[in-house]
Amino acid sequence: MPRVVRGTPRAPLDVVDGLAELGVATVHEAQGRIGLLDVRLRPIFPARIAGTALTATVAPGDNWTIHVAVEQAREGDILVVTPTSPCEDGYLGDLLAESLRAHGVRGLVIDAGVRDVATLTEMGFPVWSKNIGAQGTVKATPGDVQTPITIANQRVEPGDVIVADLDGVVVVRREDAARVLEKGREREDNETAKRARLRAGELGLDIYGMREKLAAAGLVYEDYAG
Amino acid sequence: MPRVVRGTPRAPLDVVDGLAELGVATVHEAQGRIGLLDVRLRPIFPARIAGTALTATVAPGDNWTIHVAVEQAREGDILVVTPTSPCEDGYLGDLLAESLRAHGVRGLVIDAGVRDVATLTEMGFPVWSKNIGAQGTVKATPGDVQTPITIANQRVEPGDVIVADLDGVVVVRREDAARVLEKGREREDNETAKRARLRAGELGLDIYGMREKLAAAGLVYEDYAG
Amino acid sequence: MPRVVRGTPRAPLDVVDGLAELGVATVHEAQGRIGLLDVRLRPIFPARIAGTALTATVAPGDNWTIHVAVEQAREGDILVVTPTSPCEDGYLGDLLAESLRAHGVRGLVIDAGVRDVATLTEMGFPVWSKNIGAQGTVKATPGDVQTPITIANQRVEPGDVIVADLDGVVVVRREDAARVLEKGREREDNETAKRARLRAGELGLDIYGMREKLAAAGLVYEDYAG
Amino acid sequence: MPRVVRGTPRAPLDVVDGLAELGVATVHEAQGRIGLLDVRLRPIFPARIAGTALTATVAPGDNWTIHVAVEQAREGDILVVTPTSPCEDGYLGDLLAESLRAHGVRGLVIDAGVRDVATLTEMGFPVWSKNIGAQGTVKATPGDVQTPITIANQRVEPGDVIVADLDGVVVVRREDAARVLEKGREREDNETAKRARLRAGELGLDIYGMREKLAAAGLVYEDYAG
Amino acid sequence: MPRVVRGTPRAPLDVVDGLAELGVATVHEAQGRIGLLDVRLRPIFPARIAGTALTATVAPGDNWTIHVAVEQAREGDILVVTPTSPCEDGYLGDLLAESLRAHGVRGLVIDAGVRDVATLTEMGFPVWSKNIGAQGTVKATPGDVQTPITIANQRVEPGDVIVADLDGVVVVRREDAARVLEKGREREDNETAKRARLRAGELGLDIYGMREKLAAAGLVYEDYAG
Amino acid sequence: MPRVVRGTPRAPLDVVDGLAELGVATVHEAQGRIGLLDVRLRPIFPARIAGTALTATVAPGDNWTIHVAVEQAREGDILVVTPTSPCEDGYLGDLLAESLRAHGVRGLVIDAGVRDVATLTEMGFPVWSKNIGAQGTVKATPGDVQTPITIANQRVEPGDVIVADLDGVVVVRREDAARVLEKGREREDNETAKRARLRAGELGLDIYGMREKLAAAGLVYEDYAG
Repeated sequence: MPRVVRGTPRAPLDVVDGLAELGVATVHEAQGRIGLLDVRLRPIFPARIAGTALTATVAPGDNWTIHVAVEQAREGDILVVTPTSPCEDGYLGDLLAESLRAHGVRGLVIDAGVRDVATLTEMGFPVWSKNIGAQGTVKATPGDVQTPITIANQRVEPGDVIVADLDGVVVVRREDAARVLEKGREREDNETAKRARLRAGELGLDIYGMREKLAAAGLVYEDYAG
Repeated sequence: MPRVVRGTPRAPLDVVDGLAELGVATVHEAQGRIGLLDVRLRPIFPARIAGTALTATVAPGDNWTIHVAVEQAREGDILVVTPTSPCEDGYLGDLLAESLRAHGVRGLVIDAGVRDVATLTEMGFPVWSKNIGAQGTVKATPGDVQTPITIANQRVEPGDVIVADLDGVVVVRREDAARVLEKGREREDNETAKRARLRAGELGLDIYGMREKLAAAGLVYEDYAG
Repeated sequence: MPRVVRGTPRAPLDVVDGLAELGVATVHEAQGRIGLLDVRLRPIFPARIAGTALTATVAPGDNWTIHVAVEQAREGDILVVTPTSPCEDGYLGDLLAESLRAHGVRGLVIDAGVRDVATLTEMGFPVWSKNIGAQGTVKATPGDVQTPITIANQRVEPGDVIVADLDGVVVVRREDAARVLEKGREREDNETAKRARLRAGELGLDIYGMREKLAAAGLVYEDYAG
Repeated sequence: MPRVVRGTPRAPLDVVDGLAELGVATVHEAQGRIGLLDVRLRPIFPARIAGTALTATVAPGDNWTIHVAVEQAREGDILVVTPTSPCEDGYLGDLLAESLRAHGVRGLVIDAGVRDVATLTEMGFPVWSKNIGAQGTVKATPGDVQTPITIANQRVEPGDVIVADLDGVVVVRREDAARVLEKGREREDNETAKRARLRAGELGLDIYGMREKLAAAGLVYEDYAG
Repeated sequence: MPRVVRGTPRAPLDVVDGLAELGVATVHEAQGRIGLLDVRLRPIFPARIAGTALTATVAPGDNWTIHVAVEQAREGDILVVTPTSPCEDGYLGDLLAESLRAHGVRGLVIDAGVRDVATLTEMGFPVWSKNIGAQGTVKATPGDVQTPITIANQRVEPGDVIVADLDGVVVVRREDAARVLEKGREREDNETAKRARLRAGELGLDIYGMREKLAAAGLVYEDYAG
Repeated sequence: MPRVVRGTPRAPLDVVDGLAELGVATVHEAQGRIGLLDVRLRPIFPARIAGTALTATVAPGDNWTIHVAVEQAREGDILVVTPTSPCEDGYLGDLLAESLRAHGVRGLVIDAGVRDVATLTEMGFPVWSKNIGAQGTVKATPGDVQTPITIANQRVEPGDVIVADLDGVVVVRREDAARVLEKGREREDNETAKRARLRAGELGLDIYGMREKLAAAGLVYEDYAG
């Protein structure tokens, strides 16, 4: 039975915004290399956003549930949509994007297609999708809104943090968000220092003390012999 | 036996140009959600064009037929090329594009590869292809020009209308073109009004009167319970 | 046993730079349509470069070897990386790119993923990869540096010339580089002349004398009969 | 508007049965190497059948139309099903197979999924499909029955002949069926003679008189030189 | 930090064995069409099994964790393995299969490759995998055992029921298993009755009372008009 | 310029036959986990063979070169065919298989399609291919015979050993064949002993002394806490 869950908790928006600044690669590292959605989800234009997950499942070729989801949207959400079986149809176009934006939604992550991408780009409404496809959808079978879902091989719960940029899409558990933000910032400080040394020509082999370990792992150096 | 059919009829160019203004997604909806080519065909740069189909079949790895097709081109055509078995080779480069343009061709739709894309982009010659590939072709086996073909799972007849933009590629039967243009314009007028209401925050659930039907389809609302 | 080969010879950089001017499609034709890497390798931003191959094999999900490779880099190299089994992880980010650039490396060709692409784009460090992926890697199993490798179905030896642009990536044997450069320049001169004739509307059918051969191959012309 | 077309003509069953004996590869050659469906359609068990096309389009994830199609079935038909957008769901299981068989249908060709394949195999009901998938379907949106369709990049009209075996699936136009049967039988006779000569060690180079043409095409023989 | 969780609860084996009798398609329907793993997971030989999930995550190209998992196995388990990024390597061969079987494991579900399949088939050790691949793995980076995982776009928790057969693989939540078994048996009884009617030639259109609904959905019947 | 190289050396057939007994997985391990062809190459029926590589390159959709290759065949060869760009056509059917067998060829490895697979299976002529496809080929453009090639991301030289079974296809350098055979046999002896211990329930953790290393790698054990 399809259902809408109201009043789900979510990560605080100041933490969410901090994670947006870090970006996907850093957030992913900071939480121990977990939570990355499949690389098939790509942005329709270059952007970096973070938001709280407003989740929805949709039947293949049927976008009825997205209309339902709009009503549940809160300022700072990202709509996260997974079809119940693989589908390439264009579930969302410029009209639905207008509606989502009017209700505070920052973008869309969908394991299916999207259309009207020229207009979405003009509007600056960011989308990460499996493909671009003009094939329209019907409105016959509702799905779930704000229930836990799996999308692109990751589990996303309502209120989890979604970070998306050119590197892809990562999910951070609601309860881990603050801790991951802190770790990510530490990581970033650490990287700034290293970048300067690497730019100056110092070798990672020396900075990270790898030479001995490489020898222990059996690496040998030899000279070219024709 | 390979053949070239001369004198095939085609859709009137004023209708074609009207369809270009509507774009792929609207045209596709206006004709009842049919005619969309597989989403694997993507533009090499952002563009929106429409034209009449100049069709060609090519042997895998063999672009001889494209030279034959140039002679059959008329102002306002789009060259539509399908290999007789799946192929990724770069069938067309900048020289052939120059030649096609000189004969009035507005662009290329090909279920294979294309090359010299930096130059094609500078020239502003738009291409929708399965991939980009520098692998060249031979000239040993001619195919057909201006016969009905299937490409990316759609049938295209000479003189049909091809509309292509960032959302993909759609074919409109020559005899349906005027009717689809009319319907598409109605659709666009209708959407303009709705866009304003959605932007103002009105819900699709209310605009489209969906609440009762959703309840009938079994959708239930519940409150989060931890 | 993993190994690093030092002192491998390489193609002269003036030849390399000449090949960069020609670009992938012309170089590929000039050497007899061989050496093209699989079309799945795509640039993260539009660029055209050539360099000498600094080769590396990496274990799946393990980028330790790239740190080893940096030390072997010479001005004018392109790092060419192939995983020992198919992998989509992001083997290189902005830190390693800084390090490679500091050691004279012009870009990266990798049959796997890359990350931090927004930063790499700002830096202007070009990459051709199978995908973009934020999934990080470990440092547990070293691979080989400067040994012959296969990547995207082509063999690349240390010091071979790599040319990469929007059309893809091609490898030129070190010992063939000068000859290919010469042939490519001849080809380019020849094409310039033809381009003018084609732009003026002359047909390839006539320029290349194809009409008789097409007839011999069985091509027939007929008139549309409804 | 979804529709069912009644009373469509079809190829005579004696011709159909003759084509079944020839098999897909021979039929495909006999009609000039056209009509082959994409290789992604594979049999769930080894079988060879031919029948007249009973066509249906289905919405993604919706098998309602197949129930409609059963009523239109005639002894000797093969059900040919194409989704209106790519889908992997299991549109047919053992119950529908029982029903189709009861109405004379010889098998199923579907550019989507099928399920209950263990039972279908026991029943000996042959299916060529894109995949096997247990994901069920809804009954909300009807499609067309007995209209021309495109499936796996081929056009199929009601009453066309479908031949399917381990080599794949081929369609023969209703009006071409008798002629193709005749050509196929000639071809088969010709091949029997050649098979004996080849088995005896005679070379195709000599049987087909290829040596001169190969030399003209530039083929050279050289001896191994280390 | 990689970890092994000991003493996780699991579904009762009598329920598990009941679900095995029903098979994947029936179980999937009985629990409301959820829980199906991606269709890319296919059996290496025809089999039908059910068991309780013994979960493991593995680094790409690294099967160390599987050795750890063996020790945690209990009679009636199915080992369920997901790589932390997509990988095709052969994580398990006949030796590990012997070891798993000795510890009561009924089979393997892995979103990666498997090898020694001839021997595994002789042994009758069933495997559902993404591919078959002889590429071996290293033992350098441990993963998790008996933690919740996502595999082929589904979440699996330790002790959940896995049912696998020719139709694919489905997961049933531990706490839902008894209820799903009951529903599945009802469904099966219901289907037996319907199968007899369909075999006798009765139409689904009549058995399920679809005619009126189809007319309401707009379906029209027309006669062939050339 | 296409060419045929005559008199290429090859690995001794007694070594080849020894490698056949070991199988792909063992040979691959024995030579240090290199040489495996891409997993997309699959057998048309279960078989295990080894032979010396008779190499050929073919133009896409053109099997002329295979006729040339037959004449170069020697008892114990396996024909190894790679298209110059990706192709799915059926390059070989039963006639060519008869001819190859008459000249001592043990099987075919091809990174493209094959057809007449029912007859090939009856004949017992084993093939590893990318797909099965009835699409025929032309004879217009010859390729090379007995030159070094790349196929499915591996380099194969004439006379190298090819081993193929249900696990895939591996190439062994001609000069390494005897050494790899020896190592493979040692490996097999070693595995026989281990298999018995594992079957008796001993853990790999203990047999291979992994516990300490796992702890060093950070693996922790904890008890389920709800």
